[in-house]
Amino acid sequence: MSERKRKDREGEAGRYAYDGLDRVLHEKARLAILTSLAARPEGLLFGDLKELCALTDGNLSRHLRILEKAGLVEVWKGFRERRPQTLCRLSPKGTERFLAYLEELENVIRDAAAVRDRSKDATTLNKDPLLKDWVPA
Amino acid sequence: MSERKRKDREGEAGRYAYDGLDRVLHEKARLAILTSLAARPEGLLFGDLKELCALTDGNLSRHLRILEKAGLVEVWKGFRERRPQTLCRLSPKGTERFLAYLEELENVIRDAAAVRDRSKDATTLNKDPLLKDWVPA
Repeated sequence: MSERKRKDREGEAGRYAYDGLDRVLHEKARLAILTSLAARPEGLLFGDLKELCALTDGNLSRHLRILEKAGLVEVWKGFRERRPQTLCRLSPKGTERFLAYLEELENVIRDAAAVRDRSKDATTLNKDPLLKDWVPA
Repeated sequence: MSERKRKDREGEAGRYAYDGLDRVLHEKARLAILTSLAARPEGLLFGDLKELCALTDGNLSRHLRILEKAGLVEVWKGFRERRPQTLCRLSPKGTERFLAYLEELENVIRDAAAVRDRSKDATTLNKDPLLKDWVPA
Protein backbone atom coordinates (compact mmCIF):
# COMPACT_ATOMS: atom_id res chain seq x y z
CA MET A 1 0.00 0.00 0.00
CA SER A 2 1.31 3.48 -0.87
CA GLU A 3 2.21 6.02 1.83
CA ARG A 4 -0.64 8.21 0.56
CA LYS A 5 -3.17 5.43 0.81
CA ARG A 6 -1.98 4.50 4.29
CA LYS A 7 -2.37 8.11 5.43
CA ASP A 8 -5.92 8.17 4.06
CA ARG A 9 -6.80 5.14 6.15
CA GLU A 10 -5.53 6.74 9.36
CA GLY A 11 -8.28 6.57 11.99
CA GLU A 12 -10.48 4.39 9.81
CA ALA A 13 -12.45 1.50 11.34
CA GLY A 14 -10.37 -1.67 11.25
CA ARG A 15 -7.23 0.35 10.51
CA TYR A 16 -5.27 -1.93 12.84
CA ALA A 17 -7.24 -5.15 12.36
CA TYR A 18 -4.45 -6.75 10.28
CA ASP A 19 -6.67 -9.16 8.39
CA GLY A 20 -3.56 -10.38 6.57
CA LEU A 21 -2.23 -12.01 9.76
CA ASP A 22 -3.76 -15.37 8.92
CA ARG A 23 -3.84 -17.41 12.15
CA VAL A 24 -2.65 -20.53 10.32
CA LEU A 25 0.64 -18.77 9.56
CA HIS A 26 0.80 -16.40 12.55
CA GLU A 27 1.00 -19.07 15.25
CA LYS A 28 4.52 -18.94 16.70
CA ALA A 29 5.64 -22.54 16.05
CA ARG A 30 4.21 -22.53 12.52
CA LEU A 31 5.89 -19.21 11.82
CA ALA A 32 9.18 -20.83 12.86
CA ILE A 33 8.54 -23.78 10.51
CA LEU A 34 7.59 -21.54 7.58
CA THR A 35 10.59 -19.26 8.02
CA SER A 36 12.96 -22.22 8.28
CA LEU A 37 11.54 -23.68 5.08
CA ALA A 38 11.47 -20.32 3.31
CA ALA A 39 15.23 -20.11 3.62
CA ARG A 40 15.63 -23.56 2.02
CA PRO A 41 13.90 -24.09 -1.34
CA GLU A 42 15.23 -27.66 -1.47
CA GLY A 43 13.39 -28.49 1.76
CA LEU A 44 14.50 -29.72 5.17
CA LEU A 45 14.55 -33.17 6.75
CA PHE A 46 12.12 -33.58 9.66
CA GLY A 47 14.97 -33.94 12.17
CA ASP A 48 16.74 -30.79 11.02
CA LEU A 49 13.52 -28.79 10.99
CA LYS A 50 12.77 -30.01 14.51
CA GLU A 51 16.14 -28.77 15.76
CA LEU A 52 16.00 -25.42 14.00
CA CYS A 53 12.56 -24.69 15.45
CA ALA A 54 13.31 -26.22 18.88
CA LEU A 55 10.14 -28.29 18.70
CA THR A 56 9.40 -31.82 19.93
CA ASP A 57 8.56 -34.61 17.45
CA GLY A 58 4.92 -34.47 18.47
CA ASN A 59 4.60 -30.71 18.19
CA LEU A 60 6.35 -30.54 14.83
CA SER A 61 4.12 -33.33 13.46
CA ARG A 62 1.00 -31.60 14.71
CA HIS A 63 1.89 -28.24 13.19
CA LEU A 64 3.07 -29.82 9.92
CA ARG A 65 -0.31 -31.54 9.58
CA ILE A 66 -2.08 -28.20 9.98
CA LEU A 67 0.19 -26.55 7.40
CA GLU A 68 -0.13 -29.49 4.99
CA LYS A 69 -3.91 -29.53 5.34
CA ALA A 70 -3.94 -25.82 4.45
CA GLY A 71 -1.83 -26.65 1.39
CA LEU A 72 1.09 -24.52 2.53
CA VAL A 73 3.67 -27.25 3.09
CA GLU A 74 4.54 -30.46 1.21
CA VAL A 75 5.61 -33.55 3.16
CA TRP A 76 7.51 -36.23 1.22
CA LYS A 77 8.64 -39.71 2.27
CA GLY A 78 11.86 -41.17 0.87
CA PHE A 79 15.27 -42.59 1.67
CA ARG A 80 18.60 -40.98 2.24
CA GLU A 81 21.57 -43.31 2.65
CA ARG A 82 19.13 -46.25 2.89
CA ARG A 83 17.34 -44.72 5.86
CA PRO A 84 13.69 -43.65 5.63
CA GLN A 85 13.36 -39.90 5.89
CA THR A 86 10.69 -37.22 5.78
CA LEU A 87 11.35 -34.14 3.68
CA CYS A 88 9.34 -30.95 4.26
CA ARG A 89 9.18 -27.91 2.07
CA LEU A 90 6.98 -24.95 1.18
CA SER A 91 4.44 -25.49 -1.58
CA PRO A 92 4.06 -22.81 -4.27
CA LYS A 93 0.83 -21.74 -2.52
CA GLY A 94 2.68 -21.69 0.81
CA THR A 95 5.34 -19.44 -0.66
CA GLU A 96 2.71 -17.06 -2.00
CA ARG A 97 0.73 -16.96 1.26
CA PHE A 98 3.87 -16.55 3.32
CA LEU A 99 4.92 -13.57 1.19
CA ALA A 100 1.51 -11.95 1.71
CA TYR A 101 1.81 -12.61 5.43
CA LEU A 102 5.25 -10.99 5.53
CA GLU A 103 3.84 -7.90 3.84
CA GLU A 104 1.29 -7.55 6.62
CA LEU A 105 4.02 -8.07 9.23
CA GLU A 106 5.88 -5.19 7.65
CA ASN A 107 2.73 -3.08 7.97
CA VAL A 108 2.66 -3.85 11.70
CA ILE A 109 6.27 -2.74 12.05
CA ARG A 110 5.63 0.43 10.04
CA ASP A 111 2.55 1.25 12.14
CA ALA A 112 4.49 0.68 15.32
CA ALA A 113 7.39 2.95 14.37
CA ALA A 114 5.94 5.74 16.55
CA VAL A 115 6.59 3.80 19.73
CA ARG A 116 10.35 3.93 19.21
CA ASP A 117 10.50 7.71 19.47
CA ARG A 118 8.09 7.71 22.34
CA SER A 119 10.06 5.11 24.28
CA LYS A 120 12.88 7.61 24.72
CA ASP A 121 10.93 9.31 27.47
CA ALA A 122 9.04 6.33 28.77
CA THR A 123 10.00 7.35 32.31
CA THR A 124 7.82 10.47 32.12
CA LEU A 125 4.71 8.54 31.07
CA ASN A 126 3.19 8.25 34.50
CA LYS A 127 3.38 11.98 35.11
CA ASP A 128 1.13 12.73 32.14
CA PRO A 129 -1.02 15.80 33.03
CA LEU A 130 -3.76 14.43 30.76
CA LEU A 131 -4.46 11.77 33.37
CA LYS A 132 -4.92 14.02 36.40
CA ASP A 133 -8.69 13.47 36.43
CA TRP A 134 -8.57 9.77 35.61
CA VAL A 135 -8.32 6.86 38.01
CA PRO A 136 -6.98 3.35 37.40
CA ALA A 137 -9.74 0.92 36.48
CA MET B 1 22.09 -8.98 16.56
CA SER B 2 24.97 -8.30 14.14
CA GLU B 3 25.05 -9.83 10.65
CA ARG B 4 28.17 -11.71 11.71
CA LYS B 5 26.56 -13.15 14.80
CA ARG B 6 23.44 -14.15 12.86
CA LYS B 7 25.60 -15.96 10.32
CA ASP B 8 27.34 -17.83 13.13
CA ARG B 9 23.99 -19.06 14.38
CA GLU B 10 22.98 -20.38 10.96
CA GLY B 11 21.95 -24.02 11.33
CA GLU B 12 22.13 -23.90 15.11
CA ALA B 13 19.46 -25.65 17.21
CA GLY B 14 16.59 -23.27 17.92
CA ARG B 15 17.83 -20.89 15.21
CA TYR B 16 14.21 -20.27 14.17
CA ALA B 17 12.51 -20.76 17.54
CA TYR B 18 11.86 -17.00 17.93
CA ASP B 19 11.66 -17.01 21.70
CA GLY B 20 11.05 -13.26 21.57
CA LEU B 21 7.60 -13.78 20.02
CA ASP B 22 5.90 -13.69 23.41
CA ARG B 23 2.45 -15.24 22.96
CA VAL B 24 0.85 -12.52 25.10
CA LEU B 25 1.87 -9.95 22.48
CA HIS B 26 1.87 -12.16 19.38
CA GLU B 27 -1.86 -13.00 19.42
CA LYS B 28 -3.45 -11.20 16.47
CA ALA B 29 -6.08 -9.11 18.32
CA ARG B 30 -3.61 -8.11 21.05
CA LEU B 31 -1.06 -7.16 18.42
CA ALA B 32 -3.70 -4.88 16.88
CA ILE B 33 -4.40 -3.30 20.29
CA LEU B 34 -0.71 -2.79 21.06
CA THR B 35 0.06 -1.27 17.66
CA SER B 36 -2.93 1.08 17.92
CA LEU B 37 -1.78 2.23 21.34
CA ALA B 38 1.87 2.46 20.29
CA ALA B 39 0.95 5.13 17.77
CA ARG B 40 -0.82 7.19 20.48
CA PRO B 41 1.20 7.94 23.63
CA GLU B 42 -1.76 9.89 25.05
CA GLY B 43 -3.91 6.74 24.91
CA LEU B 44 -7.17 5.85 23.19
CA LEU B 45 -10.76 5.73 24.40
CA PHE B 46 -12.24 2.23 24.52
CA GLY B 47 -14.69 2.99 21.71
CA ASP B 48 -12.02 4.32 19.37
CA LEU B 49 -9.72 1.40 20.09
CA LYS B 50 -12.58 -1.00 19.40
CA GLU B 51 -13.17 0.56 15.97
CA LEU B 52 -9.52 0.73 14.97
CA CYS B 53 -9.04 -2.95 15.81
CA ALA B 54 -12.43 -4.06 14.46
CA LEU B 55 -13.15 -5.92 17.70
CA THR B 56 -16.40 -6.42 19.61
CA ASP B 57 -16.85 -4.93 23.10
CA GLY B 58 -16.49 -8.38 24.63
CA ASN B 59 -13.37 -9.32 22.71
CA LEU B 60 -11.65 -6.00 23.37
CA SER B 61 -12.43 -6.25 27.09
CA ARG B 62 -11.12 -9.79 27.26
CA HIS B 63 -7.85 -8.97 25.51
CA LEU B 64 -7.37 -5.75 27.50
CA ARG B 65 -7.70 -7.74 30.73
CA ILE B 66 -4.95 -10.12 29.56
CA LEU B 67 -2.68 -7.21 28.59
CA GLU B 68 -3.42 -5.35 31.82
CA LYS B 69 -2.76 -8.45 33.92
CA ALA B 70 0.61 -8.79 32.17
CA GLY B 71 1.33 -5.15 33.06
CA LEU B 72 1.57 -4.08 29.42
CA VAL B 73 -1.45 -1.81 29.23
CA GLU B 74 -2.99 0.71 31.65
CA VAL B 75 -6.76 1.09 31.84
CA TRP B 76 -8.11 4.31 33.37
CA LYS B 77 -11.65 5.35 34.24
CA GLY B 78 -12.68 9.00 33.96
CA PHE B 79 -15.03 11.48 32.38
CA ARG B 80 -14.93 13.33 29.10
CA GLU B 81 -17.65 15.94 28.55
CA ARG B 82 -19.45 14.60 31.65
CA ARG B 83 -19.68 11.08 30.21
CA PRO B 84 -17.87 8.15 31.83
CA GLN B 85 -15.09 6.88 29.62
CA THR B 86 -12.36 4.27 29.64
CA LEU B 87 -8.90 5.32 28.51
CA CYS B 88 -6.34 2.70 27.46
CA ARG B 89 -2.65 3.18 26.91
CA LEU B 90 0.67 1.35 26.88
CA SER B 91 2.48 1.17 30.21
CA PRO B 92 6.24 1.88 30.27
CA LYS B 93 6.78 -1.90 30.62
CA GLY B 94 4.39 -2.47 27.72
CA THR B 95 6.37 -0.07 25.56
CA GLU B 96 9.60 -1.85 26.42
CA ARG B 97 8.20 -5.34 25.80
CA PHE B 98 6.54 -4.24 22.56
CA LEU B 99 9.86 -2.84 21.30
CA ALA B 100 11.58 -6.16 22.07
CA TYR B 101 8.77 -8.00 20.30
CA LEU B 102 9.15 -5.77 17.22
CA GLU B 103 12.86 -6.56 17.11
CA GLU B 104 12.06 -10.26 16.94
CA LEU B 105 9.46 -9.61 14.22
CA GLU B 106 12.18 -7.89 12.23
CA ASN B 107 14.35 -10.97 12.68
CA VAL B 108 11.55 -13.08 11.18
CA ILE B 109 11.34 -10.77 8.19
CA ARG B 110 15.11 -10.78 7.75
CA ASP B 111 15.23 -14.58 7.96
CA ALA B 112 12.43 -14.86 5.45
CA ALA B 113 14.06 -12.58 2.89
CA ALA B 114 15.33 -15.61 0.96
CA VAL B 115 11.80 -16.67 0.05
CA ARG B 116 11.27 -13.54 -2.04
CA ASP B 117 14.01 -14.42 -4.49
CA ARG B 118 12.90 -18.01 -4.56
CA SER B 119 9.29 -17.07 -5.28
CA LYS B 120 10.33 -15.76 -8.69
CA ASP B 121 10.49 -19.32 -9.96
CA ALA B 122 7.84 -20.84 -7.75
CA THR B 123 6.32 -22.46 -10.85
CA THR B 124 9.34 -24.71 -11.29
CA LEU B 125 9.17 -26.03 -7.73
CA ASN B 126 7.27 -29.19 -8.50
CA LYS B 127 9.73 -30.23 -11.15
CA ASP B 128 12.58 -30.33 -8.65
CA PRO B 129 14.91 -33.21 -9.68
CA LEU B 130 15.85 -33.67 -6.01
CA LEU B 131 12.42 -35.16 -5.42
CA LYS B 132 12.49 -37.85 -8.10
CA ASP B 133 12.95 -40.62 -5.53
CA TRP B 134 10.54 -39.21 -2.95
CA VAL B 135 6.81 -39.79 -2.64
CA PRO B 136 4.16 -37.58 -1.03
CA ALA B 137 3.45 -38.57 2.57
